[in-house]
Amino acid sequence: MKYVSNIKSPADLKRLTIEEMEVLASEIRTLLIRKLSVHGGHCGPNLGMVEATIAMHYVFNSPEDKIVFDVSHQSYTHKILTGRADAFIYPEHYDDVSGYTEPSESEHDHFIIGHTSTAVSLASGLAKGRDLCGNRGNVIAVVGDGSLSGGEALEGIDWAAELNSNFIIVVNDNQMSIAENHGGLYQGLEQLRQSNGMCENNMFKAMGLDYIYVDKGNDIDALIKAFKQVKDIDHPIVVHINTLKGKGYALAEEDKETWHWSAPFDIETGNLTYNSDAEDYDDLTALHLLEKIKQDKKVCAITAGTPGVWGWTPERRQMAGAGFIDVGIAEEHAVALASGIAKAGGKPVLGLCSSFLQRTYDQISQDLCINDNPATILVLWGSLSSMTDVTHLCHFDIPLLSGIPNLVYLAPTNQEEYLAMLDWSIEYREHPVAIKVPMGATNHATRPVPAHFSDINKYEKVESGSDVAIIALGAFFALGENVVRLLKEQGINPTLINPRFITGIDTEMLDNLKSDHRIVVTLEDGALEGGFGEKIARYYGPSDMKVLCYGAKKQFVDRYNIAEFLADNRLVDTMIVEDIIKLL
Amino acid sequence: MKYVSNIKSPADLKRLTIEEMEVLASEIRTLLIRKLSVHGGHCGPNLGMVEATIAMHYVFNSPEDKIVFDVSHQSYTHKILTGRADAFIYPEHYDDVSGYTEPSESEHDHFIIGHTSTAVSLASGLAKGRDLCGNRGNVIAVVGDGSLSGGEALEGIDWAAELNSNFIIVVNDNQMSIAENHGGLYQGLEQLRQSNGMCENNMFKAMGLDYIYVDKGNDIDALIKAFKQVKDIDHPIVVHINTLKGKGYALAEEDKETWHWSAPFDIETGNLTYNSDAEDYDDLTALHLLEKIKQDKKVCAITAGTPGVWGWTPERRQMAGAGFIDVGIAEEHAVALASGIAKAGGKPVLGLCSSFLQRTYDQISQDLCINDNPATILVLWGSLSSMTDVTHLCHFDIPLLSGIPNLVYLAPTNQEEYLAMLDWSIEYREHPVAIKVPMGATNHATRPVPAHFSDINKYEKVESGSDVAIIALGAFFALGENVVRLLKEQGINPTLINPRFITGIDTEMLDNLKSDHRIVVTLEDGALEGGFGEKIARYYGPSDMKVLCYGAKKQFVDRYNIAEFLADNRLVDTMIVEDIIKLL
Repeated sequence: MKYVSNIKSPADLKRLTIEEMEVLASEIRTLLIRKLSVHGGHCGPNLGMVEATIAMHYVFNSPEDKIVFDVSHQSYTHKILTGRADAFIYPEHYDDVSGYTEPSESEHDHFIIGHTSTAVSLASGLAKGRDLCGNRGNVIAVVGDGSLSGGEALEGIDWAAELNSNFIIVVNDNQMSIAENHGGLYQGLEQLRQSNGMCENNMFKAMGLDYIYVDKGNDIDALIKAFKQVKDIDHPIVVHINTLKGKGYALAEEDKETWHWSAPFDIETGNLTYNSDAEDYDDLTALHLLEKIKQDKKVCAITAGTPGVWGWTPERRQMAGAGFIDVGIAEEHAVALASGIAKAGGKPVLGLCSSFLQRTYDQISQDLCINDNPATILVLWGSLSSMTDVTHLCHFDIPLLSGIPNLVYLAPTNQEEYLAMLDWSIEYREHPVAIKVPMGATNHATRPVPAHFSDINKYEKVESGSDVAIIALGAFFALGENVVRLLKEQGINPTLINPRFITGIDTEMLDNLKSDHRIVVTLEDGALEGGFGEKIARYYGPSDMKVLCYGAKKQFVDRYNIAEFLADNRLVDTMIVEDIIKLL
Repeated sequence: MKYVSNIKSPADLKRLTIEEMEVLASEIRTLLIRKLSVHGGHCGPNLGMVEATIAMHYVFNSPEDKIVFDVSHQSYTHKILTGRADAFIYPEHYDDVSGYTEPSESEHDHFIIGHTSTAVSLASGLAKGRDLCGNRGNVIAVVGDGSLSGGEALEGIDWAAELNSNFIIVVNDNQMSIAENHGGLYQGLEQLRQSNGMCENNMFKAMGLDYIYVDKGNDIDALIKAFKQVKDIDHPIVVHINTLKGKGYALAEEDKETWHWSAPFDIETGNLTYNSDAEDYDDLTALHLLEKIKQDKKVCAITAGTPGVWGWTPERRQMAGAGFIDVGIAEEHAVALASGIAKAGGKPVLGLCSSFLQRTYDQISQDLCINDNPATILVLWGSLSSMTDVTHLCHFDIPLLSGIPNLVYLAPTNQEEYLAMLDWSIEYREHPVAIKVPMGATNHATRPVPAHFSDINKYEKVESGSDVAIIALGAFFALGENVVRLLKEQGINPTLINPRFITGIDTEMLDNLKSDHRIVVTLEDGALEGGFGEKIARYYGPSDMKVLCYGAKKQFVDRYNIAEFLADNRLVDTMIVEDIIKLL
């Protein structure tokens, strides 16, 4: 590693020749593949952006010139060039940096970013703020890798034309999203690539922006020339660069979808280092829906650019045919589309990761629930034990959805209950239904599961006891069972309830508890504020019932240790029992 | 009225000649102006779409062919032609129909729509559902009047190109949003108009769509020819029609912004029938911010296409210069832009109507609050006494915002407290701040107001009493004062608290209440589920304190009588007192 170790800041980079930078690119690629093989992370996006990032830091003067990376999952080379190379060179330092840009790490990072399609808008704010404050410098937004189809990105690109000052949008066109790209604009990008940027109907020009094209998006020399051409420009411009996703790692170049993000792997074979054969809820979902689609042409599965999140491998997508719809990164559209399909008599099942569902509150409320169209939404990975990056927290789906009228939000506690809910929901025509799909390995029912859930807000009393009632929601039902077991060891005989419905209260059951219970405990696998437990607390507010609500307190946490986080929120059976006994 | 009274369904329209339809258009225009002058409503959008709506219903066969209107505020002529003319002919029937499409009124309406930019996605769902179910018929989305810049519209247009079957997008280009259009795509539309649809860089073609242009968008004959050309087409196509907003009412043609929506007015002069001189919070806000902008170039006010909602008249916008930013209908972009400006050292104040704020949950969480950038968001019209159309309810901003970490959400109770909070927030650099701006006529402080609110979650105890404490949030502080007065008449001496902070709990004050209070009452001007009161109920859950929470129960209500609605939710001082006394 002749060069990479000596680059402590972009100033060191500027001393290199083109040829030296090409060697540097190769060193960085080696580091990336090595770290990713051990640590996991975003492979393809970073491998494709090595040269462009070198060229940007060579031409521009970060941090006075500000580079904002969309999703910021393609910022690894940027980190290496801005004083954080150690976190890619030394395994013991691999965890020193976030997988995304992080202002607390470096003055070269301007935002914490993890959701797609935000960089143009955020960076245009830096540009506008610069102008308002009378400051100088280039502002560069780097967007691509499927993000362009997101509404926020398109809003930002549209507005950028009004910014009558320096603003550079680098469109990293690697012809891919996580899976293949979807949407008509990618046809337009293809025509631009094929015509060396010269074709009619350039969407960027049609939206009022200046434009240049760089065909060799992995050629440092060509990129430097392009960036020099736009540096200090006095108006907004798009620099469209044609890059190769996964470049330099043959397996990633060949299978771009698999290698968008990868768990640790063997560099030579590409095989994952740890491979679990246990069936999980993602696989279960895709396989179950695939059967449904085969049996009934009206059923369709919809994803917004993340088929892999719920088991939809390329093979399964192909088998589903017209019954599988990937709208690309366009969550808002996905919800409205599902509402329209349901209205037309179809049976749409939309799968959205809890974190990305956050983009669709208004669509779920307005397009879906006011219209009361019977679509199904599967809320995926919604758990405190899910992704731990602050930008990908899956803590907030209960507060987000549970206050929306007309929506039935269900929390299954095991595989059989989940599939019964899903089957029922697909045929149910009264209301939209959301299901909080459990995460990870499947678990089985130990009690009978009903086939219908039309009796809205009817809880299941699993065990009848007295004094203490545990209302254990969804994935935390197992925690509730443990609390019950521990209480029984203490001579307390509690009631155990599986509420099933997140969006309402079984007033009859709760009223009945008043006669011989003094404490009701709620357990939910998500944020407490605005959540399920608070509904119970409010319901019992005017009564003598004491209520203890368990969930995550209000905070943004980043890259947390899950066990420590749960303990910090007293989400541990022994702690809960301790609290109950203290209150009894 | 020779023709309009005889049109009971589109079939009756199809028997008319072009000349007769032109007379019909003139009759409809007379009806629209007459009803709007008495009833109020959307003037310009409907006056501009009379001919296009006639032509669509002449060519297509609704309801087998399905027409979906974006925002659906331009659907009045559609209602007249589909059996609902009486609601426009007879004043006693004016309120028989909604101002938006409403499936419960007619089989010709497919969705309840009131927010912008949703029609393309919803209609594409109808088209996809049609295909999945093996049905037939045209699906037509009508979008325009500023809506194209919204992310959901752009996501939908992008995805439409993938729909390999019949789908017609009518772009109603009246060169306006509510105010003037913003965003580069409107430059592109202008070039298309100037070139009769033939210019290079057609954004629709760039996004993979077929396209035709109709220059005479208010000429029934030309429109019929165009719609016949696309009827039963086997792929998606855009029909771009050039219409005149406000056509046929000279005042509305001249001043398109004022006449987008109007309260009842005198037809001859255009003067409003009822005109209040009382200062309101909208005017107060714009005037105050205008002064701030004049004094400090770093301050800017941002709107997403709705400047009039918070007092920003064209004159005031002009006076603010670069300090006023209208991003067009693009709420998501507006939030990210504000975050970027704040990061760059600017002092952005973003005004969003509570109902439209719903589109920005993810941007507020990710772009703003995770980054903890100190922008100010003014939540406008957020009240149960605000707009009463189901699509425009302003009930949900507390549940939406109050669970987001880092955000300080403030609820002022009077004019002086509001301006102190606003002044403080503009200079505060620690966290993003949202302020729930009161609605309607201003009211004055009767007690001193602090200049700083940095002591986060510190409530104000306004009156000290015992037994009962009333925590009266924001606009409902006045309700709290009335409850206190009535309780005193009953010999009860309650505590009165102005919490000021929606997003947190003053644990010290709440703990102290335990010693000599038995009941805590919360009052909030919004939905109960996930709201402020539930936080208090949860906090007191393990204690002996009884908690009564007042707000709106979970439901979508439409065109409600506000007084009846408040009574139905027991949001009346005498009812609250009755409940308290019963519980004491």
